[in-house]
Amino acid sequence: MRSLLTVHDLSRYDRESVVERAVFLRDRLDGGHAIDNALGEFTVGNVFFEPSTRTQLSFDLAAQHLGARVLNLNVSSSSTSKGESLRDTVETVSAIGVDMLVARHSDRGSMRSIHEWTARPVINGGEGSYAHPTQALLDAVTLVRHFGTLDGLSVGIIGDLAHSRVASSLYRLLPDLGAKVFQIGPPEFLSDEIDADQVADLASVLGDLDVVYLLRVQRERGAEISDSYVESYQLNGDRFRSLRDDAVVMHPGPVNRGVEVTSEVLDNARCLVLDQVANGVPTRMAVMEWALSG
Amino acid sequence: MRSLLTVHDLSRYDRESVVERAVFLRDRLDGGHAIDNALGEFTVGNVFFEPSTRTQLSFDLAAQHLGARVLNLNVSSSSTSKGESLRDTVETVSAIGVDMLVARHSDRGSMRSIHEWTARPVINGGEGSYAHPTQALLDAVTLVRHFGTLDGLSVGIIGDLAHSRVASSLYRLLPDLGAKVFQIGPPEFLSDEIDADQVADLASVLGDLDVVYLLRVQRERGAEISDSYVESYQLNGDRFRSLRDDAVVMHPGPVNRGVEVTSEVLDNARCLVLDQVANGVPTRMAVMEWALSG
Amino acid sequence: MRSLLTVHDLSRYDRESVVERAVFLRDRLDGGHAIDNALGEFTVGNVFFEPSTRTQLSFDLAAQHLGARVLNLNVSSSSTSKGESLRDTVETVSAIGVDMLVARHSDRGSMRSIHEWTARPVINGGEGSYAHPTQALLDAVTLVRHFGTLDGLSVGIIGDLAHSRVASSLYRLLPDLGAKVFQIGPPEFLSDEIDADQVADLASVLGDLDVVYLLRVQRERGAEISDSYVESYQLNGDRFRSLRDDAVVMHPGPVNRGVEVTSEVLDNARCLVLDQVANGVPTRMAVMEWALSG
Repeated sequence: MRSLLTVHDLSRYDRESVVERAVFLRDRLDGGHAIDNALGEFTVGNVFFEPSTRTQLSFDLAAQHLGARVLNLNVSSSSTSKGESLRDTVETVSAIGVDMLVARHSDRGSMRSIHEWTARPVINGGEGSYAHPTQALLDAVTLVRHFGTLDGLSVGIIGDLAHSRVASSLYRLLPDLGAKVFQIGPPEFLSDEIDADQVADLASVLGDLDVVYLLRVQRERGAEISDSYVESYQLNGDRFRSLRDDAVVMHPGPVNRGVEVTSEVLDNARCLVLDQVANGVPTRMAVMEWALSG
Repeated sequence: MRSLLTVHDLSRYDRESVVERAVFLRDRLDGGHAIDNALGEFTVGNVFFEPSTRTQLSFDLAAQHLGARVLNLNVSSSSTSKGESLRDTVETVSAIGVDMLVARHSDRGSMRSIHEWTARPVINGGEGSYAHPTQALLDAVTLVRHFGTLDGLSVGIIGDLAHSRVASSLYRLLPDLGAKVFQIGPPEFLSDEIDADQVADLASVLGDLDVVYLLRVQRERGAEISDSYVESYQLNGDRFRSLRDDAVVMHPGPVNRGVEVTSEVLDNARCLVLDQVANGVPTRMAVMEWALSG
Repeated sequence: MRSLLTVHDLSRYDRESVVERAVFLRDRLDGGHAIDNALGEFTVGNVFFEPSTRTQLSFDLAAQHLGARVLNLNVSSSSTSKGESLRDTVETVSAIGVDMLVARHSDRGSMRSIHEWTARPVINGGEGSYAHPTQALLDAVTLVRHFGTLDGLSVGIIGDLAHSRVASSLYRLLPDLGAKVFQIGPPEFLSDEIDADQVADLASVLGDLDVVYLLRVQRERGAEISDSYVESYQLNGDRFRSLRDDAVVMHPGPVNRGVEVTSEVLDNARCLVLDQVANGVPTRMAVMEWALSG
């Protein structure tokens, strides 16, 4: 039994085998084939201290496909503003009898704390602006399914990198799998953790990218949507047509249509947003299997 | 695979066979008999953009009786005020991997849009003031179980017809199954869609009705409860005693006790309100089977 | 089929056999052994008119371990302020097809009313300040597992007894199982229902207690936390060290750390709070089995 707090908890071998397993499971699900009940007689606790729609449903269905019972617990942050309360919630849910915790929380460091307070494996379902490892993994799965490999791909991540746990996890994961990652955005949206040689100018690199990975401007975390941002960075029809013919567009959702991307681009067949969603369930299944097999 | 957006999606043959199947399933459930897992290995997404208690639980249990997994998603209208957001939610839930969508939404036309945005069958769980086909079907099931047939029955629908999706679906369904439907209420509560020959005066028809179908005054949709409404239209003990001895009382719930009906009438054995609720699960099971078998 | 509204619904024989069965089931769960599907093909309705986290999850998992389907229904008190609405909700949930109701409500007498309105067995999941029988039973299970028996144990219940449904149920149950119960707290926190010879002074009895059972100061029910309360009654390190070496500490949770107890005491191995939580699921399983077997 082992936990996934960041993508660094996966060895290079683990990363590749989890991605490969998820690709296999996606095919099984699409084909309507039976799945091994790897979590049969297990109970998964979905403990979300931040609201979520797609991620919580995705973990819920992943656990059910593996034969597990699921307990969903949504806790408002207000009721756990004190560290003691978070700890008490984690210890209580563990004592009730869950065999694995999936957790989401707004604070950096919360997953490390949760991991200390329970003997059960913990899967990070989103941690502040810091980490969202299963999102990065499902994105890798999406790219492997589309291009066959990540080796040699150029990926440009555009937008509000400073507030994005998705971006944090992506630029920890993708380079290790062989991709080159560029960080693109206005200065106030760039992260301190980014290497200078990863920062790129949109106009300079756009024609060379294999993947344009758009981020949502996160108004709920204090970011502002300015006209100049939309003008300078929105992936509109003109910018889309300047991409390579085989380049694809990705976005972790939910999308602000008309802000970071236009509907015209979203509805293009080279936009993989819904394929990313569809890879969420098999990727989380592969992660849960990995957590149990350690 | 086919969708139920309004009762018109059912052919005459379908209407009769769904009702007959629901009557059969109700007996099986009451007898504690096993039910075929028609939805075994399926996932039903219960996507409710309006709050609901009985309808959502009823679809949830219907799906579980058929062996399906259920994902419940409650989305506040505020977070999907833009059409794009509704579309994104529908596309996301579909991509996560549900095999059938049950949806409720406050806007007329929403079900047609949802149907366009997903390749999965869509079951209408309530659409604004426009349609609630499974409620009309379960009411038909209730009448068939009680009277043996709808052929020749006189049904008076009393109350706030203009705001009622239940009334809309009932007067589309019941006449086709052989019942005569009267619409009774003050002018401001009548619907433009009603044929003039269906409008009736309460005092004139009360003694001839087989079924008194009461509607809730929907304060949440802007209707007002006036003293004169209660005086003129409430089914109280006096009016109940002027009914035929074999007439029955129905109501789609939730009831405003003391407004459209008194507790004395509600608690009479000829009030079928709880039988209507009990027919909800087998009716929704029959609808789900129909949707899959097309 | 029978209901558990208060611990008095259990005969002396029932109390002992439910506790014994729960001890057995706890061992089965800890050992990962299969459990008989005593509720196979049953549907349990979890109808909570007051918010809950641990109790609702505990009943949910207990029902699932016994093979039941679970419908969770959370109803805000505001929407059922009238007695009619509570009745309508109970009748509706029963008609939908649940085979057993687990209910929580803030009003004394609500369980008796619910029991009158449904033909299904009702399990009290918490009733105002009046009763919480499954909590008292799981506490008995915790003590039997720790001490082997309750016979002859001295239990001091400290705190806001007047507002505590847990205390109400404990002093109905524990004496019948052979324990001596002391009620300890400031005058405004004592209950009218307490026998005078059960009231004790903290300093006088502390060194003689086998069990210190702390209650949460319930600010949401109008109790105030004063400095003098904390000074006079908090179980801090000094008071803990004056206990007998084999005395244990219990609390029904959620705990106000730093109010009725300090973190130092909570984290001591002789604090059984998490063991209480772990006994919740097997105790509720034993209660559900008892309800069905009558």
